[in-house]
Parts: sequence; structure tokens; C-alpha cells
Amino acid sequence: MSQRQASTSHRPDPVTYDLLREDSASRARLGVIHTPHGDVPTPAFCPVGTQATVKTLSPRELVELDAHMILGNTYHLYLRPGADVIARLGGLHRFMAWERPILTDSGGFQVFSLQGLRQVDDDSATFRSHIDGSEHHFTPELVVETQEQLGSDIAMVLDECPDPLDYAYNVQALRRTHLWAERCLKAHSRPDQALFGILQGGIFDDLRAESARVLTGLGFPGYAIGGLSVGEPKADTQRVLDGVIPLLPKDRPRYLMGVGAPEDLYDAVAQGIDLFDCVLPTRLARNGAVFTAEGRMNLRNARYREDGRPIEESCTCYTCQHFSRAYLRHLVMTKEILGLRLNTIHNIHFLLRLMETIRQALAEGAFLAAREAFLEHYQVADPLARMDNRQAWRANPRSRG
Amino acid sequence: MSQRQASTSHRPDPVTYDLLREDSASRARLGVIHTPHGDVPTPAFCPVGTQATVKTLSPRELVELDAHMILGNTYHLYLRPGADVIARLGGLHRFMAWERPILTDSGGFQVFSLQGLRQVDDDSATFRSHIDGSEHHFTPELVVETQEQLGSDIAMVLDECPDPLDYAYNVQALRRTHLWAERCLKAHSRPDQALFGILQGGIFDDLRAESARVLTGLGFPGYAIGGLSVGEPKADTQRVLDGVIPLLPKDRPRYLMGVGAPEDLYDAVAQGIDLFDCVLPTRLARNGAVFTAEGRMNLRNARYREDGRPIEESCTCYTCQHFSRAYLRHLVMTKEILGLRLNTIHNIHFLLRLMETIRQALAEGAFLAAREAFLEHYQVADPLARMDNRQAWRANPRSRG
Repeated sequence: MSQRQASTSHRPDPVTYDLLREDSASRARLGVIHTPHGDVPTPAFCPVGTQATVKTLSPRELVELDAHMILGNTYHLYLRPGADVIARLGGLHRFMAWERPILTDSGGFQVFSLQGLRQVDDDSATFRSHIDGSEHHFTPELVVETQEQLGSDIAMVLDECPDPLDYAYNVQALRRTHLWAERCLKAHSRPDQALFGILQGGIFDDLRAESARVLTGLGFPGYAIGGLSVGEPKADTQRVLDGVIPLLPKDRPRYLMGVGAPEDLYDAVAQGIDLFDCVLPTRLARNGAVFTAEGRMNLRNARYREDGRPIEESCTCYTCQHFSRAYLRHLVMTKEILGLRLNTIHNIHFLLRLMETIRQALAEGAFLAAREAFLEHYQVADPLARMDNRQAWRANPRSRG
Repeated sequence: MSQRQASTSHRPDPVTYDLLREDSASRARLGVIHTPHGDVPTPAFCPVGTQATVKTLSPRELVELDAHMILGNTYHLYLRPGADVIARLGGLHRFMAWERPILTDSGGFQVFSLQGLRQVDDDSATFRSHIDGSEHHFTPELVVETQEQLGSDIAMVLDECPDPLDYAYNVQALRRTHLWAERCLKAHSRPDQALFGILQGGIFDDLRAESARVLTGLGFPGYAIGGLSVGEPKADTQRVLDGVIPLLPKDRPRYLMGVGAPEDLYDAVAQGIDLFDCVLPTRLARNGAVFTAEGRMNLRNARYREDGRPIEESCTCYTCQHFSRAYLRHLVMTKEILGLRLNTIHNIHFLLRLMETIRQALAEGAFLAAREAFLEHYQVADPLARMDNRQAWRANPRSRG
């Protein structure tokens, strides 16, 4: 890695992707994304640090969990404390004391989720701050400038995120998303930052194909699939991925935004996705729910009141190495902050180890066997719990996931 | 220390105090308290872990901060999760993964602060839970049994905590406190736990002297001064300490409950106090206020918006080594949990280093010079801020401090 970093100045592209191995039985692939702040082995899951902090965790803990890249959010940081403030303080990495790669979402998803949204036209998205009601205009150029001020390794274009099931609206929104993608590309100039494109088109195969055609024509160093995992039926998600991934270049990373349920990670990796982000592990943790190899465990359940076992006997995270389910339940019931922290550590650890298992399996040519072994024991959250997730998004759409 | 631990079984007293050095210019003293879970160099400040967690911190962080002893609270743990539950899970140390000494407060202060308190008679204090309104009776025997179930190194007697300014009521309450102290002593049987007495008597010298006489007559391995630092004028606190400390045996530790402001720690050490606890550093931290050598700093202040400096340039805590005032302010303003954590780390670090400085000065025979050097730069929180503390206690009396 140090060799690569040393040679960065000789390469025109600040972020590149090396495809190391393709799975013979699926579209899954093993690779690595090189960034100015280090390498990200893929497939990778990125914890979400919306407001320049992965909720409840310190950077030291994230390094110990071996998170390779985290997310920041343009919408939130633009409003508070202001990207100009962060720039004057040395950029987002220094601001939050995180020396590894950062990807910043453009804020499109957040803006288009705001209930008080007034207007979107080809020029900009006009919205009111959820904090103080002040009016703001996001143009593609402003969103690029903001992310250049933040200094993330990977910036995202401004996109419009419509209801994925409304065909007529998606036709219009897609035209605008493509227009904005081109303007973002033109506006982007920071040499140590990559700008990724975002495909939209809802659940409609023809629109998704059109989006892939237009964006790959523009030529981005990486491509995100936006507008999925927002409550649409899972069969639609899979069909869209199945149709669109083959239309993307093999030498660029593919990023599925907002996905983080273990079963969904396996499914999307099988489709050829390299990068994920989701608030699910941190949000579930704060609600007292933790991942286990058998499925989700709700620590509020009275059955854990005197359960002296860790969440998972075999887990090596700080939480499982020191604390019982009974203690964690006590912290959840008494609303103690340490409970939120310990549950978050376990959930992030769980997903990062899951991705490590996937990468290991890909290296050994045994991805589908690993997936099968996982799904054999893992009880997927029932449709109601998935609906909860959808409803949570509708009720509080400013946070993805 | 290991030698002492090895010889524990040959000593009748589980907790003992060694007086190492007396200050020639004040009553301050350097010492060490030996407990079944290790030594506590004194004077010492104990962070408060009311509900089996020092708010926002992990045990690992507390060890790194080098906290020698922490507090737990009988009232809170009796209600949730129940001392019997903790006992079946192996005791409080194991429950919260804290291997160093623990002192448990008896819950008297909490019970007598409850607004819905129905009745106190010589038999017991009857109260309603602040959680579900259920009725409970604290007898001296129950409070001792509860602390034996918790397995703390130092347990406290049940005491009545009246308004410190009401003489007539203090006379009655003191009789009951002494009666209960005797019953606690009789009920106590756990050989690896010490039971400390608590002096009461409000701000009245004659009652305090009477309390010292009765309790030292009963013979406890340690003595706490209760019922002070609850909003009474500071001159009264100092006068009471000045009068009562000389009445306590020199070979037993003295513990001033609920004191934690830096200037008050210096003053009480000068009076001969060995042990302190207070929620001040953790509570202030959660309100965005941090200690500095110059006084309290409120991180909400707009002046810190772009301040790239740490809270204190010379501070060696994790917070100051990694984060700017601007970042901490951002976390406070966005209500991010990491902000509560980082502020708490700094404040606990500040007080523990202050106690270390005091011990070092005592070892070198330079205590008063150290005190003077500290107070020269430290701007004491103004009377209004002290009043805030008093009002906070009145408004939410269940938390000491």
C-alpha cells in the first residue's frame, strides 16, 4: 500500500480499482479500491458517519474494527458545521480524526426525502433545512464544490431520488439526473478526489439500462446504483441489479447505496457489487437489536434478563469478549449510552467480519458455498421487520437505510 | 499489591487504610486504601457509575484513565436489574466487567430525595420507584443485604439525608441515622466487603460532633461525611469539615460524598479528606462543559466554531490528543453521542490528574504550594453556576452532585 501511495502523484486517477478474481459460479468479484488515503479491499461495507461521526463510535474503535472506508454526508455537513468551516480546519479527515478513506454522499437522497421540499427544476433542488427552516439551493456545481471542500476520497454526483415505483416521474427525473451528472463532472476539479456517478431509474429495466448507457458514456471512475433498497420489493431490487450490472465496465467499482442487511449483502455481492453502505447496523444497535449468525436478536427481550452469555460465544468483538446479554439488556432498558456503543461495536464487527468472510471465500473460489453456509443458519428478518425499515425511511427519510 | 492480596485471608479487615504522610501545613494526608480488588492511592476521586456504568464510558477507557475505584448505586441497581440478578450473574464487578475496587452508595440519598416519598419511621424508609411507581421498603438490613449481593468492596450504611439547614429535623433524623448505622453493622456479614459509616447532622457543629462520637463508638473501617455539598453555603461546608474531621480516627479513610468541583477537592483535601465521588465531571460533559486549568469551558459557545485547538494544549487525554474544540462543538450542537463520550473522557481525565498532582505534591511536602498554583489560574465557576448545581439537585435529586 505504501508503494502505491508513493506513486499516487504519477497516476492521473486518484481512485482506481483492481479486479483480482471473478467468481466462476456467480458475478461476484474480489478486488481492491485504491484511494489517496489507502486501499479498500472489496467487496466492502462502509459504516455511515453522517455528521462526521459513525454514531456512538470513536475513530480508534473503527480502526480496531478494521473499517476500511466510512461515509460522510454532504447535506448534513453543508448545514452543520458548514463545509467551508471543515475546509479551513484542514478537511473532513482531520476534522474527525479519521486517516482512512472517506466517501461522501452527495446529499441528493436527503434533499429529495425532505417533506418540506419546495421545488426541483433543471437548475437546482431547493429545500428548507431540517434544522432551522432556512432555504437552500443545491446545484450540481455547489454539491461538487462542497465535497471538494470536505476533501473526501470519493465524492458522489447530485442525483434525483424519486419514488422507485412511479414510471412517468422516473423518466423525467432520470433526464435531470443525467444532466446533473454531466454538470458535476464538468465542475469537478480536485485532483486527489474521485467523483462517482449514480444510476437511477427506479425499478424499471429500460430506464436503468438507459442510465447505465448515459453515465458510462460520460465516463466515471466508479458507479453507484441509487434509488434501490428504499422499500421496493426485494425481487425488483434483484431484477434491476441482474439487468444493469453487466452494462457497467469491469474495471470500475460498483457501489450499491443503502444496503446492509446480511442476506442482501450476499445477494448483491453475487450480482457483482463491490461497495455498500447502510445505517442498519448502527440504527439497529441503538434500538437494542444485534446481529447473530442465527439472525437478529432483540436485547429488550425479557428472556435475556439473567443470560450470562455474550451475544455470540464465538465472536471476538470487545462487546462479546467482556459483557453478557444480561448486562447489555440492562444498559438498553436503562437507556445508558454504553449500551448503544457496545451494541454498535458488535453490529459493525459482525458486518465487517461478514465481508471478510466473503472476500476470503472469493479468494478461495468458494463464494456460493459460503453464502449457502451463512443462509442455512441465518434467519432473515421477517417481512414485517423489513416493512419497519421501509416505514422508518418514510417517517424519517433524512437517514438512508 | 499482590503480596497484600495474597495475605488477605489472614487479615480480619477486608479494607484497610495506610497513612503514608501528613502535610505539615494543613490536615491533608497521603495514603492508600487496600481493598480485595486492589489499592486506591488517596486522596482519590471516584467516578460515579450509578447504574453499573460510568455514563458513556467503557471499563477499558476507565482503566486507561487510571480510575482506581468507581461507585455504584444501591437504589438504582436494586430496582434495575435487581441485586439478586447481579448476584446470580457473579456480582457487580463481573456484571460490568470492572476488575478494580467498587464502592456502593446505600441509596439513602436517593430515597430521601424522591418527591413521592411517603414515609420514614425507625423501621424503614418507604418509597415509590421512580421507574414504575411500585412501593418499596428500605430497611438497614435490606440495604446491607443488597450490597452484599452486589459484592462491592466498600458498602455504605443506610442513612437519612435531611435538609441540611433544618436543625429540629436534623436532630430527629440523626437519631434514626445512628440507629440504622448500628443495625447495618449488625446485619453485615460478607467477609470480603467493608461497611463504612456515614456522619450526618446538617450544617450544625454540635450534631456533627455527636454523629462522630456515636459512629466512631460503633467502630467502622471508614467514615463518610454525608449531607453536605447539597446546596448549602460553602462556608458551612468548610466549617463542618473543620470541626468534625479531627474527631475521626487517623487510621481510617474519610470520604466526602458528592464533592467533585476542582476547588472543592483542594479545600476538602486540606481538611483531611481521602475519598470523593461526584457526578459533576460526567454531567457537565454531557452538557457540553469541560474543565480546563483556567476554569470551565462551554463548548456550545460560538467562539469555538472554527477553533482548531484541543480543549487544552498540554492535556494528554484521548480527546485532546485527537480532536479540536471545533469538532467537539460540532458534536455537541448535533447531539452526537461521541461528543458526550469525548467530553466525559476529558473531564474524568482532568479530575484524576488533579488528584494525582495533589498526591504528588503531598509526597513532596508541597501541597499548599500546589493548591495555590492551581487556584491562581483556575477561575471558579461563579455563584450562579453553583446555584445551577443546587437547582439541578432540587429538580432531579435522584442523582447526587
